Amino acid sequence: MSAENSVGCVTPQTVHFNGPLRLRSGAVLPAFELAYETYGTLNAARSNAVLVCHALSGSHHVAGCYADDPENIGWWDNLIGPGKPLDTNTFFVVGVNNLGGCYGSTGPLSINPETGRRYGAAFPLVMVEDWVAAQARLADHLGIDTWAAVIGGSLGGMQALEWSLQFPDRIRHALVIASAPKLTAQNIAFNEVARQAILSDPDFHDGYYADHGVIPVKGLRLARMVGHITYLSDSQMAEKFGRQLRHGQHRFSYDIDFEIESYLHHQGNKFAGFFDANTYLMTTKALDYFDPAYDYQGNLAAALARAKARFFVASFTTDWRFAPARSREIVFALLHNRLRVVYAEIDCDAGHDSFLLDDKHYHAVLRAYLENIVV
Amino acid sequence: MSAENSVGCVTPQTVHFNGPLRLRSGAVLPAFELAYETYGTLNAARSNAVLVCHALSGSHHVAGCYADDPENIGWWDNLIGPGKPLDTNTFFVVGVNNLGGCYGSTGPLSINPETGRRYGAAFPLVMVEDWVAAQARLADHLGIDTWAAVIGGSLGGMQALEWSLQFPDRIRHALVIASAPKLTAQNIAFNEVARQAILSDPDFHDGYYADHGVIPVKGLRLARMVGHITYLSDSQMAEKFGRQLRHGQHRFSYDIDFEIESYLHHQGNKFAGFFDANTYLMTTKALDYFDPAYDYQGNLAAALARAKARFFVASFTTDWRFAPARSREIVFALLHNRLRVVYAEIDCDAGHDSFLLDDKHYHAVLRAYLENIVV
Repeated sequence: MSAENSVGCVTPQTVHFNGPLRLRSGAVLPAFELAYETYGTLNAARSNAVLVCHALSGSHHVAGCYADDPENIGWWDNLIGPGKPLDTNTFFVVGVNNLGGCYGSTGPLSINPETGRRYGAAFPLVMVEDWVAAQARLADHLGIDTWAAVIGGSLGGMQALEWSLQFPDRIRHALVIASAPKLTAQNIAFNEVARQAILSDPDFHDGYYADHGVIPVKGLRLARMVGHITYLSDSQMAEKFGRQLRHGQHRFSYDIDFEIESYLHHQGNKFAGFFDANTYLMTTKALDYFDPAYDYQGNLAAALARAKARFFVASFTTDWRFAPARSREIVFALLHNRLRVVYAEIDCDAGHDSFLLDDKHYHAVLRAYLENIVV
Repeated sequence: MSAENSVGCVTPQTVHFNGPLRLRSGAVLPAFELAYETYGTLNAARSNAVLVCHALSGSHHVAGCYADDPENIGWWDNLIGPGKPLDTNTFFVVGVNNLGGCYGSTGPLSINPETGRRYGAAFPLVMVEDWVAAQARLADHLGIDTWAAVIGGSLGGMQALEWSLQFPDRIRHALVIASAPKLTAQNIAFNEVARQAILSDPDFHDGYYADHGVIPVKGLRLARMVGHITYLSDSQMAEKFGRQLRHGQHRFSYDIDFEIESYLHHQGNKFAGFFDANTYLMTTKALDYFDPAYDYQGNLAAALARAKARFFVASFTTDWRFAPARSREIVFALLHNRLRVVYAEIDCDAGHDSFLLDDKHYHAVLRAYLENIVV
């Protein structure tokens, strides 16, 4: 984090909502809390608010750091701050931890008021549509009638798209980055492997591991390892790790031989140390189920007909999780509806994770688009 | 299996070798057995023998069926038989279960003469080079000085390539199909996920599960599910399964929703019912380690300089596990050495598994090549 254009120290906040929230599954949450952060200042016209939606492992801590934890820098800090592409001199930026998350919003780790114990598997499945409905409550709370923009990458991009459909009059610009209008069979297959890794871990205890004082570490680790393979591009993996040996030789054992194995173990162990398994399971289901065209016989153009926002869609050439072709599907459907779209296909080597990096071209097009948003 | 051009009922055989086999790892097997099958007749000149090498889950049962188990048809039966591309009217075809396998050759499930119990994790790691060395013993036993051809797909292709390097004077044609000269970081990453799934299964017992009367079913199942994702192409998965729902609706649970999940579960469960976990682990390591250019500073052309065989190399356009580019690396290195190569890049939708199918073009080029082998 460069101090000179950082939002600096930030303080997470929590808001409690008492009204019930009916979820897509039919379940009802009588009350819930959302953890969020804001950067910049809401202008008098309340016309400069931008919502940042997070992906699978993200949180409301999008930019800046914490006074008591200066190394804990927001996950999109390279994008957000004074003078950065999403400029906090212009915009009032809101980050939120999604409902069902494990960073402070009500989720499986929260206390179930009905039992006095952690929800665990009793927490209802929360889908993309539900996240957006909950985020709308946050907008109400903050006095934001219309977002200048909603922006997100990957699963976050699905939320930006969903905003344009569920609340077409409350969003002026939707920025959908490294995303897809729905998962492919292959995407779902990877998610199912990750889920099975967690579900079959004996420490999972049917989702009530907290009651047993354990965490399904092995399952979470495996799930994250699978995930990371799909986040990186084949070419970047080859360049970064290739067939480099950790100890200079083949060791004829099942210990770590290759650097890529070491990397995956590191990522898996780190993740298992902080992420909640039930939240992970739920989030993969939210990904699997998201499909705005589902009620339109698969016709995405028909599904997007109710959108009114202007769109920025971006994809990355080496992203094989949500390949450029998936973004183009969104673009075609938007154009079919004569909606205004800027589409950028960015030549970046980092695969799906490119959306988190400060690639020069990527940030330049994002900056250009955001600078043109009237506030 | 069509009866009219089938090799018919076959009988597996076993041969015992008493001389010690020094393995690449440095370990020595004092004695071992290989299970094998043969189809067709060895001619008087002993010049018509073809060795078929199997991939990860294959065996010596390559063609035909068993009298007492007529449904158990060889894994490459569509290729091998009277009048088929690998014509048993012309060739004497040999299938062998690799050393360390779990279909009858000595492996982790065999009794360790030193302990009187199953080897389990005490069975030494056997690499591609070792398989080929053991296959050479089988050739000696069968009185085959020189193979007319050695053929294999995927890991089997690596063995065909290794034959051309380890025994350049004992192989006239090497058929290397859907293969690669070494794994990429991404390939290794997938293998490591599969291994960790098995290693972290509590029923694995450090590889001595047989002593506990259990099988690491969950780990094996996960490993196979990951594998299957990489065997199929994205497009074929989309076509075969798409987002089809098993029960016609989203069920908001972690049970099977999508057909692709059902398919993976089925494949995983089936595999866990018959394959040995230690053999699986070992085989993935054999894949990871295989790299003929390792001793040549990564220079594949230099590594292949000692080959004398003629080559048939084939790849499949939708194979992303061992993409056509990987086959082209082999072709370039062979051409660099002025070796004779036929290369076919086949437009087939079935991904890596294409090599097992009877795609018309694929079988036509294979047939054309094999018909031209002088016996």
